[in-house]
Order: sequence, then structure tokens, then C-alpha cells
Amino acid sequence: MTDERENIQFELTDELIEQVQHLIKVKDDEELNRLLMEFHYADIAEILDEVDLDEAMYVIKLLDSETTSEVLMELDEDNREKVLRNLSSKEIADEVGALDTDDAADIIAELSEERQREVIHHIEDAGHKAEITELLAYDEDTAGGLMAKELVKVYETWTVEGCLRRIRGQAKDVTRVHSIYVVNKQNKLVGRLSLKDLIVAKSTEKIADIYIKSVDYVKVDEDPEEVAKIMAKYDLEAIPVVDDDMVLLGRITIDDIIDVLREEADKDYQLAAGITADVEADDSIWQLTKARLPWLLIGMFGGIGAASIINGFSDAMLKFPALLLFIPLVQATAGNVGVQSSAIVVQGLANDTIDGNIIKRLFKEMLLGLVNGLAIAIVVLFISHFGFKTTYYESMTICIALITVIVMAALIGTFIPIFLDKRGIDAAVATGPFITTSNDIFGIMTYFLIAKLILGF
Amino acid sequence: MTDERENIQFELTDELIEQVQHLIKVKDDEELNRLLMEFHYADIAEILDEVDLDEAMYVIKLLDSETTSEVLMELDEDNREKVLRNLSSKEIADEVGALDTDDAADIIAELSEERQREVIHHIEDAGHKAEITELLAYDEDTAGGLMAKELVKVYETWTVEGCLRRIRGQAKDVTRVHSIYVVNKQNKLVGRLSLKDLIVAKSTEKIADIYIKSVDYVKVDEDPEEVAKIMAKYDLEAIPVVDDDMVLLGRITIDDIIDVLREEADKDYQLAAGITADVEADDSIWQLTKARLPWLLIGMFGGIGAASIINGFSDAMLKFPALLLFIPLVQATAGNVGVQSSAIVVQGLANDTIDGNIIKRLFKEMLLGLVNGLAIAIVVLFISHFGFKTTYYESMTICIALITVIVMAALIGTFIPIFLDKRGIDAAVATGPFITTSNDIFGIMTYFLIAKLILGF
Repeated sequence: MTDERENIQFELTDELIEQVQHLIKVKDDEELNRLLMEFHYADIAEILDEVDLDEAMYVIKLLDSETTSEVLMELDEDNREKVLRNLSSKEIADEVGALDTDDAADIIAELSEERQREVIHHIEDAGHKAEITELLAYDEDTAGGLMAKELVKVYETWTVEGCLRRIRGQAKDVTRVHSIYVVNKQNKLVGRLSLKDLIVAKSTEKIADIYIKSVDYVKVDEDPEEVAKIMAKYDLEAIPVVDDDMVLLGRITIDDIIDVLREEADKDYQLAAGITADVEADDSIWQLTKARLPWLLIGMFGGIGAASIINGFSDAMLKFPALLLFIPLVQATAGNVGVQSSAIVVQGLANDTIDGNIIKRLFKEMLLGLVNGLAIAIVVLFISHFGFKTTYYESMTICIALITVIVMAALIGTFIPIFLDKRGIDAAVATGPFITTSNDIFGIMTYFLIAKLILGF
Repeated sequence: MTDERENIQFELTDELIEQVQHLIKVKDDEELNRLLMEFHYADIAEILDEVDLDEAMYVIKLLDSETTSEVLMELDEDNREKVLRNLSSKEIADEVGALDTDDAADIIAELSEERQREVIHHIEDAGHKAEITELLAYDEDTAGGLMAKELVKVYETWTVEGCLRRIRGQAKDVTRVHSIYVVNKQNKLVGRLSLKDLIVAKSTEKIADIYIKSVDYVKVDEDPEEVAKIMAKYDLEAIPVVDDDMVLLGRITIDDIIDVLREEADKDYQLAAGITADVEADDSIWQLTKARLPWLLIGMFGGIGAASIINGFSDAMLKFPALLLFIPLVQATAGNVGVQSSAIVVQGLANDTIDGNIIKRLFKEMLLGLVNGLAIAIVVLFISHFGFKTTYYESMTICIALITVIVMAALIGTFIPIFLDKRGIDAAVATGPFITTSNDIFGIMTYFLIAKLILGF
């Protein structure tokens, strides 16, 4: 029987949204159902993200549990929160009953602790309930927090025939089988098999004689970024998760890793700009302020520090007013150099491409700072001398100070991330305002100290 | 027959590298082969990335073509370049002969145009040669540049039985089948099938009666980031690529998208820091300078601009020396605010979560700037008044100027990316030094203009 739907690529147009809203308004359930069921649940979620909460709730209550549970997963986080608040604990339990355990656990974890207990209480399938409860116990920022309990596992003592008989039930719940995992009597992971291997083997053979002993796995407390790295490295589409004793606990599939990668990229990008929480452009002003103000305050204290230093050298500037003209230039350049250096190092640390030799790196950064500093200093020399009519000594001072500050900024930008990384702190925290603030203070200090040395005040 | 290898997770230790280097030195080919063939090719590549070029070449020439071609793909880009330079065109042709067409095309594309012609000339399999040549014609930053020719396709006119007979040959070359694509007589994509559907159907049925008409696809000139978005949205593991007439041209698999995602994240991160080319921490000083200096120069010109403005207001500062103390603070805060705003907007544009209403956004950013600006200004007010003993008027001036500059920076940081995006320019270019430089100039200008207004000079 063919699928009658035409092959039209989904497009979220205003007309479509209005059409849906109209059908909701006139309560044409039959037509609404017919229209929406043509779409992939990710597309239905896109539509619901655009309509009012009431309209979304109408649709959620209209469509069947299996569809709405998947739609719930795809909704914008903030909208999902609102929808969940408008569903009873029993209704939520019905929704998650239709989901894979990892998605079910994710949704439940978004609720308050009290609601979590209520929802779990209402889950009908005892096995499903137990599995979800187990998953909720894991830290969400680990392999355990990512994995699902759905997988196909066979015991090495089984025969191929017995195997095929028993896995039909397991395979029904598993959307994409990928590999079949082989465990021993203590449920410890010992190897893997593909469906093809199983079908090709003689029915009387023992699993123990045909499975592949070499299988990639991750520990349940592994960092999600590490899991992503391993799966990308070995081109895996699924990876089993085990505990410290190699007992098979669950499985992570590639689609979850894609989400991890995209969220990680967003998070690092925001950290680099000094935004400390996961915010979106459409969040409330209060949420955005909470996320942005901390770093602004840190940057501000850097500015206060710079102000104190300038204050301390104020007589120098009465004598050599040209010095002050170039303060913004020195600050800006030091900041840019520092951010560039740290961005490269942070990426290198994330991709494991940083050579261990610290001394070599120190030399390289100094040389790089010198080369770039010289290039910039030469331009500044000309402009300050011919443009601003500074004296020869003043111009040289500004340039030498500039080069020194640049070299120093390159070193700071390189070694703060490495230092943080060696102490287990996320090096991505180092970039952005943290680096620019350090550079502001050290930059101004160096600038004036060099000037003092050369011009003698 | 079981796989005899023990299930040991690969670890790149110094001992292992030394062991490999020793075996190479004493030319113990048999042991070297035995040792290395235990490892996944991605692990062999990791080992080769750590040894000298001569040692790597030794291993490459020792192992069989099928393994070394995969190893070549996994090598660090710079090392692969060196290895390829040390292989003859015929040898490279043998390597790529064993690769999937997308990987083969990627390797050949890394060579000079002349070597490309030589290598292609030496490829033995005429079909493989034709397919690789076709792929090389596509822009590497499109779906065409990502796709492989290997896929399983069946004509809607076939019967199920005829289908199963004919696809054995196709399926042999395809590592993971995922979906079978259905085409009409003009080779246009009309639908899809799963292996399961095929096996379950009656052998006399026609494909035309059983295939699924709804299939996701991408056009051959589609942006790789768009492809990644679609595959992530619909949880696809492979997606067919078609031309404007819907003729099936190739297929992109999820492992290639993982690589795209990881490279995109790196690239955006570097752009935000003002690094204009794809550089790594271990690149040469010349390469790093070429990538970093342009932005430093732009930042420098921003500093020159600021210097000119300060120069223009130099008498103001003789009267009100406190003004100059806070220049770095104003610059730093404006810079941070601008970078934060643009980071959020750039991400929103990339994830399509930006609401179209520009006026609403304008108001929101102004309000955000006001709130954050007030918070910071209050702290500055206290510190400048009690810490630096500025007069009441001076403190108020500095604070009002600060708030104005912050609001302005938030607006600049928000609207430059949106402006660029509407003109089709990569908004990620907006963040980093570009924004901070604009903010430097406008910030200083605003600061002094406000001061002039209030203090009246």
C-alpha cells in the first residue's frame, strides 16, 4: 500500500499558520487532523511554536498521544514549559508513555520535583516507569543523561535460532537497531553483532561463537563532548553505555549527538561573548540581564582598575599629553590580540590538537606577538608622528609600549586557557570579557611603565 | 568465526608510539602489520600524526590500499598534504580507488590542478573515475561537494523480485544502506523504501505500488549548514541530493554532517575572535599572522579614530581631567555589551529564532541597554565620587554618558548583524573586532558629546 501523500517539502508560511489558526477557531477537528497528520512531527512543532498557547493546547489535545509526544520534544523549550504547565500530571504521563526512555526522561526532568513524582506515579507501564526513573538519576551532563534504555541485547549463551525468536520483541521498541549488543550472564557487555550476521548464520550456532569481540563503548559518567568525539572518530551511529563493571546500561544514538554538538557550539559561542546562561534573543529582559550583567560588571572593574592606574600616572600625562591619545588604541589592540590567541588555543584544546610543549608554545606566541606588534607599531609610528605631531621620543615610546603590550596580550591569551584547562576548568570561560579585562589592566599598566622607563618620569 | 581481538579501548600512549617507531626502525613488517591491523583506521591515523613523515610513509606503503586510503582520510590535514606529496600520482590513484566517491573527491581536491589530472588519469575503474570527476565539479561548500555517488536506487517499474536481484550489486558498495531511493524512468527521485519493506513485500508486487511517496531531499547547490539543519530536524541518517529537475544525483550521510557541524562551530568561533582563515594552534607564524593581522589593523584604525576624537576634545580634558580616567571603562563596557548583543543575535539568526519585528527588537535592546547601563552606572557613580573624588557634575556626566554609550552599543551590536544578514553577508563576521571597533569610535564620540552637553565646553 503506497503512501498517498505528495512529495511536498514543508514550508512554514504565514498562510499555513493562518489556516491552522482558522481551523482551530471553527473547531474543524476532522480537517485539522487531516492537515496536520500530513506533516512530520518536527514541522507540526514549528507550527505550534508560532501560534498562541491556547491554540497549541487545542492541537495537543486533539492529536493522538504518539504524535503529540514527539511534537512536545521538538517544541521550543520555553513553549514546551508552558504547554506542560497546562497539562495534568496524568496527561503528561500518557505522553511520555509513548516516548523512548531518553526523551521521556528529558521531558520529565524539565518539571518541578513534585510534578516529576506525580507524573512518574501515573505512568502505566511498570517497566517503562522503572527505566525512566533510573535515567532520571543520572547527571544530565553525562552519557547516562543522554542514553536511552531501548536497545537489542542477546546473551552469548543463546543459539542463533533462540536469538531470532527472542529479539523480535526487543526490536519492536527500537526505532533503529544498528548493532545488537552481546552480554554475558552478568549482563556485562562482551561484544556486538549486526542483524545481517544473525540472519546469515546457521540457526544452531551459538552466539558465543559468532559475535565480534571488539566493541566501542562509553562509561555512564563520560562527558557528552567526549562521546561525540568518539562517535565522530569511528563513524558510529550508536554506542553502548556501560558502568564501571562493564554492565550494559543503555545506548546513545547519533541523533542525540547532533543535538549535543549544536548546543555545545552555541554555548561556547555565548561564553566567548561573556554570556553566562543559555539565553535566546527572545527571552525576557530580566533573563537576558541576569545572563549578561555579571560579565559586564567584571569588565567594569577592569575599567576601574585602568582608571586607577591612569590616575596614578596623571602627572605623566600633563607632561606628555600624547600618551593619553593612544590609550584606546593600546587597549583595543591588546584586547583583540588576547581574544584571538585564546580562541585558537581554546579550539585547539577542544580538538586535542595542542602540542604539549609549553616552552615551544611560549616562544611561538612571543614571536607572533612581535611580528604582529611590529606591523601595527610601524603604522602607528607614522600616524602618530605625522598625523598627531608627536615628538620622536613620544612616538617611539608609544610604539615600543604597544609592541610589549601586544606580546604580553598574546601570552596572556594563550596561557590562561591552558592554565584553566590543566585545572579542569572549561577553557571556553577564558575567552571574551575575562581575557579583555585582564588585558585592560595589564595593558595600561605595561603601557605606562614602559613610557616611564623611556621618557623618565 | 569469532573476532579474536580483545575488547581494549584504544589509547594513544607514548609507549605505543615508541613501539611503532621501533618496529619501523628494525623493519619488522610482519609484527608492524599485525599490531596496526588490530586498530581502527582512525586510531592508526592518530598514531601516524605523531610520528615523522618518513615513518608515516613507511607504514602507508606497508599496509594494504583499503586500510591506508581510510587512514589517509583521517590524518590531520597538514600531514595528509605532506604524505600526498610523497606519493606518486599512480599510488594516490590506487588509494582513492578504494574510497567512497565523496572521500575520493575530497582527497583529490586537495591536490594541485595538475596533479589532480594525473591522478584521475590513473584511476583504473572507469565508472569510479567518471563519478569522482563529476563530484569534483561541484563547489565544495554545497550539498554537491558533500555528497557521495554510492547509494541504492530502484526504478518504480521494477518488481520486488527483480529489485532484490539487482540491488545486491549496488548494496555491496554501500556501507550503510539506510533508505533505498525510488526513481522514475527519467531518473527523477519519486520516493523511498526501506530494506525491511522490500523483504516483507510479495515478490510479484511492483515497486510503484509499495514505495513511500514522501521523501526529504536537498538540492545540489544547498548550503551545508541548511543540510545539517534538515537532517537534524527530521532525525535523518542520510538524505538524497537532486538537481533542479529532481534527478537523483547522490546522497549525504550523517557522518559527513557531523564533520560539517564541528567545522562550522570552529569557524564561527574563530570569526568571532577576528581570525579570518582556518588556522590551528600549530600552524606557522606566517599563516597565523596572515589570518590575524587584518582584524588587528581594523581594530587599530578604530584606535586611531578614537585618538583623533580625544585630540579634538583635549581642552575639555584639561578642564575636567576626571573625564579621561574613565575612557577605558567606557570603551571596555561598550565593547562587551556590543559583543554580547551581537553574539545573541548571530546565534538567533543561525537558529532561525529571530522574530521579524524590528521595531519591537529596537525597543527591547534599548530597554536592555538602559537596565544594564543603570546597574553599571550606579556602581561607577559611587566609585568615581568616593574613590576618585570627582565632582558631582563630573560623576553624573560620566554616568549619563556611560548609560548612553551602553544603549548605543547594544543597538549597534544588534542591528549590524541583522543588517548584514538581510544583505546575504555571514552575520558571524559582525562579531568580534568589527563590533568592538565600531563601538570604540562611536563610544568615545558619544562620551565626549554628552560630556560637552552637560558640562558645557
